[in-house]
Amino acid sequence: MTANEVECLIREGVPMADDIGFKVDEVRDHFARTRITFTDRFVRPGGTISGPVQMALADASMYAAVLASLGKVEMAVTSNLSINFLQKPAPGDLRAEAVVLRLGRRLAFCEVRLFSGGGDEENSEEQLVAHVTGSYALPAKRD
Amino acid sequence: MTANEVECLIREGVPMADDIGFKVDEVRDHFARTRITFTDRFVRPGGTISGPVQMALADASMYAAVLASLGKVEMAVTSNLSINFLQKPAPGDLRAEAVVLRLGRRLAFCEVRLFSGGGDEENSEEQLVAHVTGSYALPAKRD
Amino acid sequence: MTANEVECLIREGVPMADDIGFKVDEVRDHFARTRITFTDRFVRPGGTISGPVQMALADASMYAAVLASLGKVEMAVTSNLSINFLQKPAPGDLRAEAVVLRLGRRLAFCEVRLFSGGGDEENSEEQLVAHVTGSYALPAKRD
Amino acid sequence: MTANEVECLIREGVPMADDIGFKVDEVRDHFARTRITFTDRFVRPGGTISGPVQMALADASMYAAVLASLGKVEMAVTSNLSINFLQKPAPGDLRAEAVVLRLGRRLAFCEVRLFSGGGDEENSEEQLVAHVTGSYALPAKRD
Repeated sequence: MTANEVECLIREGVPMADDIGFKVDEVRDHFARTRITFTDRFVRPGGTISGPVQMALADASMYAAVLASLGKVEMAVTSNLSINFLQKPAPGDLRAEAVVLRLGRRLAFCEVRLFSGGGDEENSEEQLVAHVTGSYALPAKRD
Repeated sequence: MTANEVECLIREGVPMADDIGFKVDEVRDHFARTRITFTDRFVRPGGTISGPVQMALADASMYAAVLASLGKVEMAVTSNLSINFLQKPAPGDLRAEAVVLRLGRRLAFCEVRLFSGGGDEENSEEQLVAHVTGSYALPAKRD
Repeated sequence: MTANEVECLIREGVPMADDIGFKVDEVRDHFARTRITFTDRFVRPGGTISGPVQMALADASMYAAVLASLGKVEMAVTSNLSINFLQKPAPGDLRAEAVVLRLGRRLAFCEVRLFSGGGDEENSEEQLVAHVTGSYALPAKRD
Repeated sequence: MTANEVECLIREGVPMADDIGFKVDEVRDHFARTRITFTDRFVRPGGTISGPVQMALADASMYAAVLASLGKVEMAVTSNLSINFLQKPAPGDLRAEAVVLRLGRRLAFCEVRLFSGGGDEENSEEQLVAHVTGSYALPAKRD
């Protein structure tokens, strides 16, 4: 599947992915690079992009990496997800990199890193803002 | 704080909480009982309420239990969250119970259970659909 | 299986269980109550029972609850485990309660609570010292 | 601290580290490379190195990376640990790589990967057998 096909499948199938403006920039076997564009709507008082928005980005990114590895997998659903928020994201775009660390017959175990910053501004370095691991349950019969 | 005050604070402060129609039914020290009303908008193909919607409910519920224990805590943010999806929820309301298991000076560790079903229909039993643990980081100075 | 049978099976099969003097006090469907007796050998400088000893107790307790639910299951192995250390245990015995929250065909999802204190001494209250969730992978064919 | 100093401190201070023959091969800021040598004593029926042994290796490795970053930190203790067992290790040595992803004032968040295989034998490739994340709580005052 192409990055665009993965993005469309996820945005149609996962309600929150469309809400957060999820974009898939690159896919290859066991890997997906994605992002969401910042809007005020995601922000908590204090300026932090809310936890659930970051969780939705991570979940959609894992799914993208799974689709990139297996092709169109209907009925794959999240089995578990664990997120550690390491620091407050800057009020800008968030990007993610998802890797499938283990592709079993029934479960795909993934790792996702969420990054913030690193734009054009002076002195702007990208920061690791959250670290995520999770599993997608894969349907029994697949093409 | 009353259940209504907790609900308003969370719905104003947490973007996704308002999106999912988060309601707080009961609060007491170290505990909150909450729910979201089912709408088609939450649903993935196959009829499952999406993972991120359940994560948002769990996160808001933990926050409700923390507020119920500490009063209005500005700037409390999620430190980490871990969710296990145990079975597909029925296409109906989801309710949650959040307990603060450990209230430290800097971190509140919580457990949340998400339940589905148990409505008026015949043969309808409530099921545990997801189990969540997580921590909220508490600000250094508090009233 | 009886509590004694479960204890023997685990102590023979799991190296660390025997090292920590793992005991099974009670089993019933979806549940096991267990403990380890305190020895200096478990203790870190500062007097805390070491993390790995608590992890071994939690893992063996989950396995006990799984055996209590399914009978003798060869080749069941830990799929994942997540532990939160909530406070330092008192320098005494640790006891655990493990519950199977979801018994699927391929995975058993469990919750374990570790308790400390509550002995005969004056003013001694039992404390929740750690909270654990985890999954055991179950073999495909079972009696 | 040198790799040897880190190894000695951990083996003296953490009971299980000495039991499993924990060795530190390399340390640098935010990183430690470690291993344990295989013995039959670690093995479950079926030949798998037991879960708790892998957990002890991961925990000690995180601690090594923290010590490598901060120098000798007394009273640092594990706050939480989460392990995913990805495949059965070969019956041989296990090695680990631990990285400190975020070094805060109060918590160090780490990632550890456990590897198996990759010895001298023909056709022997190293495999990722477990993935771990965890946090160490750091004492308030440090040199």
